Parts: sequence; structure tokens; C-alpha cells
Amino acid sequence: MTTTTQNPETSPSLIAESLFLQELVRQIRAFDHYGFYRSWSDELVLSPFIIAKKKRREISLEGDVDPTTKMRILCFYRAIASLIEKETGQLCQVVVDLNHEGFGWVLIWCGRLMVVTRTLRDAHRFGFETMESLAEQGKNLTASGVEMVKRFPEVAQF
Amino acid sequence: MTTTTQNPETSPSLIAESLFLQELVRQIRAFDHYGFYRSWSDELVLSPFIIAKKKRREISLEGDVDPTTKMRILCFYRAIASLIEKETGQLCQVVVDLNHEGFGWVLIWCGRLMVVTRTLRDAHRFGFETMESLAEQGKNLTASGVEMVKRFPEVAQF
Repeated sequence: MTTTTQNPETSPSLIAESLFLQELVRQIRAFDHYGFYRSWSDELVLSPFIIAKKKRREISLEGDVDPTTKMRILCFYRAIASLIEKETGQLCQVVVDLNHEGFGWVLIWCGRLMVVTRTLRDAHRFGFETMESLAEQGKNLTASGVEMVKRFPEVAQF
Repeated sequence: MTTTTQNPETSPSLIAESLFLQELVRQIRAFDHYGFYRSWSDELVLSPFIIAKKKRREISLEGDVDPTTKMRILCFYRAIASLIEKETGQLCQVVVDLNHEGFGWVLIWCGRLMVVTRTLRDAHRFGFETMESLAEQGKNLTASGVEMVKRFPEVAQF
């Protein structure tokens, strides 16, 4: 909640162009059971994902990962899973397994195929330098996931 | 800790015959940093895994899953992963992802291949009717995991 008021150089056109950012907004809004974000623009909804490097370093690694940060991580990878699902027609599952030190696994799989695996470190500081890099990383992870499904279709459908 | 004193019909020979039970004992002892179990027999170490159906139904599903139960679940699946590793030479990873309602995923994977996936329900009540069924379920899961690796070696080595 600390960074929602910083709404830097994001142009609405970036979101209009990026399928990934649109899906990410959709994932976040899906969790917004009380309509808290209803009146917010898409840029504002995404703005907590953007944390400058200097600011990120200031986030303490003590104690548990903040629940809103955890939710952000989950939304990021759910958006990827959802886009892989749309492109391949295979159902995807997501697990984010973090220990209290902010270290853990992110796993996205279809059938018996792991399409995305990542180890997370310092999850407290999850964030992206710019909206562009957020869009690009999401897009790249989605593309590599889709490629895995195309490469091993038999395992993905197992 | 409630069931450690019940040490029913287990025969030491069952453990001597079951590779899985031996590995399970090894996993549990590996977590025993303070040597609490050092003087315990293998049968006694395994006894909390055996919970009669009636007793199991009495375990409350309220609140978080007991940490010792969680540890037992982790040890069970780590033993499977370790045996798959020994048989196939592929490194295995284990994630147990439980929510506070005792519902979640157990995942064991090699490379990009999910060799064991299970959904858990009512994890509070994790246990087995007899030592035989514990040994058998572990053995069967190990065998199905090894079969997956043999079936898709390319994905397991990815």
C-alpha cells in the first residue's frame, strides 16, 4: 500500500498494447471482492508493482513477507498462467510456496509438465523497475511457458 | 505427539523389508536436530504415522494444521522423492503447499517433469490405518514416480 500514490511515467497506451498487463489488471481486480479498486484506473492498480531500485533496497527483509506483496506475486504468476492457458488450451495450476524468509518456489504446470519454475529470493522486495520491464518479463515468461507446452504436448496433456 | 505411545502390531521385520519405511525413518531422523529420537526404535519413530480410522475422525479440522503433522507429510513425500532420486539418478524437488484449512498440493518434480502430484484434503488427519498400508502407499507412489521418469526422460532431464 506504500507505493500506490507513485504513479510515474506509465502511459495508458502501454497497457492497451500489452496483453500481459491487461491480464494482470484482470487478476488483481478478480481479488478485489469489496470493489476497493473499482474507481481506480488500470495504471493506478498496477502502480504498486513498480518500485525503483533504491526504494526496493529500503524494504526490510525482516519478518514475514507482506500479505499484499504475496498477493502481488501470486497475481503476476496467475496472469502468466492464464495467458498460457488461453494460448495452449491447457489448464494451468499455480503454486507460490514462500517461507517466512521470503525464499521459495513459484511453479506453474500443465498436466505433468512444469511450464514455469522459479526460485524466489527476497520476495519482500518483489517489484519491477518500470512498467515496460514488468510487461516484458511477463510476456517472456508466458512465451517460454507456451513453448514448453508446444515442445512436450504429450506431458502437458498427461 | 499424541499417538507416540500407541505402538501396535508393527513388527520390526516389516521395516527391515521395506525400503520405503527405512527411508522414511531416515528422513525423520534427519530433522531430529536435538537427538530427541536417538534412543527410539524405528518402529516408535514411525508410530505417529499410524492412526486408526476412528481416532482420525476425532482429530479436529479447526485451525491450522499441526506443525508436527505438516512435518510428517513433508517427511513422507521426501522419502518418496529420495527413493525416486536413488532409482533414477535425477534430482527431485518437493513442495508441500497447504493452506490453513488443511487443503493444498503436494508436488514432486524432476527437471520439468512432475513425477508425483497430489491434492491434500483434511491434512490435519494425515495418517495411515496400518504400517503395512503406509509402506505400500509409499512404495506405490515411488513406483509411479519412477515410471514417469522412465517414460519422459527428456523432460526429467530438461
